[in-house]
Amino acid sequence: MTINLANFTPQELRRTIRIGQYNGVTSGLASGYLQANIIIVPSMLANQFLLFCQKNPTPLPLIGVSQPGSRSLSDVGEDLDLALDIPEYQIFIHGKLDKSVSNLLDYWDKSFVTFVLGCSFSFEQALINSGLVIRNLQQGKNVSMYDTNIKCSPVGNLSGNVVVSMRPFSEKDAIRAIQITSRFPKAHGAPIHFGDHKKIGISNINYPDYGDSVDIYEDEIPVFWACGVTLHNIIKQSRLPFCITHAPGKMLVTDLLNDSLSIF
Amino acid sequence: MTINLANFTPQELRRTIRIGQYNGVTSGLASGYLQANIIIVPSMLANQFLLFCQKNPTPLPLIGVSQPGSRSLSDVGEDLDLALDIPEYQIFIHGKLDKSVSNLLDYWDKSFVTFVLGCSFSFEQALINSGLVIRNLQQGKNVSMYDTNIKCSPVGNLSGNVVVSMRPFSEKDAIRAIQITSRFPKAHGAPIHFGDHKKIGISNINYPDYGDSVDIYEDEIPVFWACGVTLHNIIKQSRLPFCITHAPGKMLVTDLLNDSLSIF
Repeated sequence: MTINLANFTPQELRRTIRIGQYNGVTSGLASGYLQANIIIVPSMLANQFLLFCQKNPTPLPLIGVSQPGSRSLSDVGEDLDLALDIPEYQIFIHGKLDKSVSNLLDYWDKSFVTFVLGCSFSFEQALINSGLVIRNLQQGKNVSMYDTNIKCSPVGNLSGNVVVSMRPFSEKDAIRAIQITSRFPKAHGAPIHFGDHKKIGISNINYPDYGDSVDIYEDEIPVFWACGVTLHNIIKQSRLPFCITHAPGKMLVTDLLNDSLSIF
Repeated sequence: MTINLANFTPQELRRTIRIGQYNGVTSGLASGYLQANIIIVPSMLANQFLLFCQKNPTPLPLIGVSQPGSRSLSDVGEDLDLALDIPEYQIFIHGKLDKSVSNLLDYWDKSFVTFVLGCSFSFEQALINSGLVIRNLQQGKNVSMYDTNIKCSPVGNLSGNVVVSMRPFSEKDAIRAIQITSRFPKAHGAPIHFGDHKKIGISNINYPDYGDSVDIYEDEIPVFWACGVTLHNIIKQSRLPFCITHAPGKMLVTDLLNDSLSIF
């Protein structure tokens, strides 16, 4: 029996994940609803991480923060259980991946603070609705992502470089994409660069550091948005003593509509 | 005695022009207020011209249209006299400049319909207020303008190519400029192109067809906006039997604040 998860409500999808019946990627599921990056840190790191998000809102747009120890976050999902509702979690120790787990029941601590961060999935539907074609979706691939030479504003021990996602467009469509994504500051907002990739420290556009390579046609330019994968750079480069994140592509599905993030 | 026209209200400036005491360019005068392109056509051409503006709102953003024969347009300027309040008028016959005159008292006809069209002056202050540097203003020059291969949507005999103005920016500032100018659709709105000038039929970026050449630094790209000078291309290319416009740079100064054009 196949069930069409795309038509599930966020609540239905989270319940399916919660009882262990789905552990795949969430792209395209609970269509129309905001999917988010999460990072869970012990409360002693929480204030510093909060300040880091505040100083770096473009790569790390903050949507919600839990109370210490709480597994719920009702602003983001009505019956959300932060220890169960993500298909796969990754536990990092001193900036290195220690293990991947399907739930946090054996790991949850009363000091845990969860940060929920916006993701470019939220503006992609708005781009499509406006008639733009997103190459990686057209080619059935993951978006191309690259390390850059753009440094985040550091806070204490937290530092690292911005990771960008790239979508190729004609200049005309790039202008339209800038307009549309500007409406979504909580989903990384407007691009941070376009055109010459070398200016932001990308040596070869055909070899993304994360995700897949996509075709860039001759009449197109690459357009670069800040990306939530920046989070993993920060964890790695700062050698964060302990944290937990969602596994790549296996996001927190929220009750918030993507379009509810639009500022106009 | 020098008087500082920059501090004049639009009403004071128009009265000064009306009594023949100023016939220069209006750039920088009555600061903060919308300056507009005008074109006056006989009523038999007015409907066609109105439709042409409607079909080509980016180069020809319509702000006001007079009643046939009326020299006033109170939506745009309280005591405005369309036959007197522009420093210099140009009369075109069959698309060719016939003469320049300081007022229209000897030419006014009860069939005349005046169209008032937005101008990029209105968004330049918003760019400056956001910290961007407009190169031609920095260099004390007129903006660079170019004929393009982009055709206006034709209406009857009215046709012609879009003229663009160009301002160079870094990619980061170009993204900001796209955001800001998107707020001003009645002042040509967002750019219509950036980067490779050849794609829109400009053969040499250093030789503008109108205005002055400005420096483009190595880390900058040219950004192109639709320009009101398109109007003169239409007049010429359509061989419009009869019309009157303002002389270049000698605009209609209105009572509308530039920022009142912002849509958000």
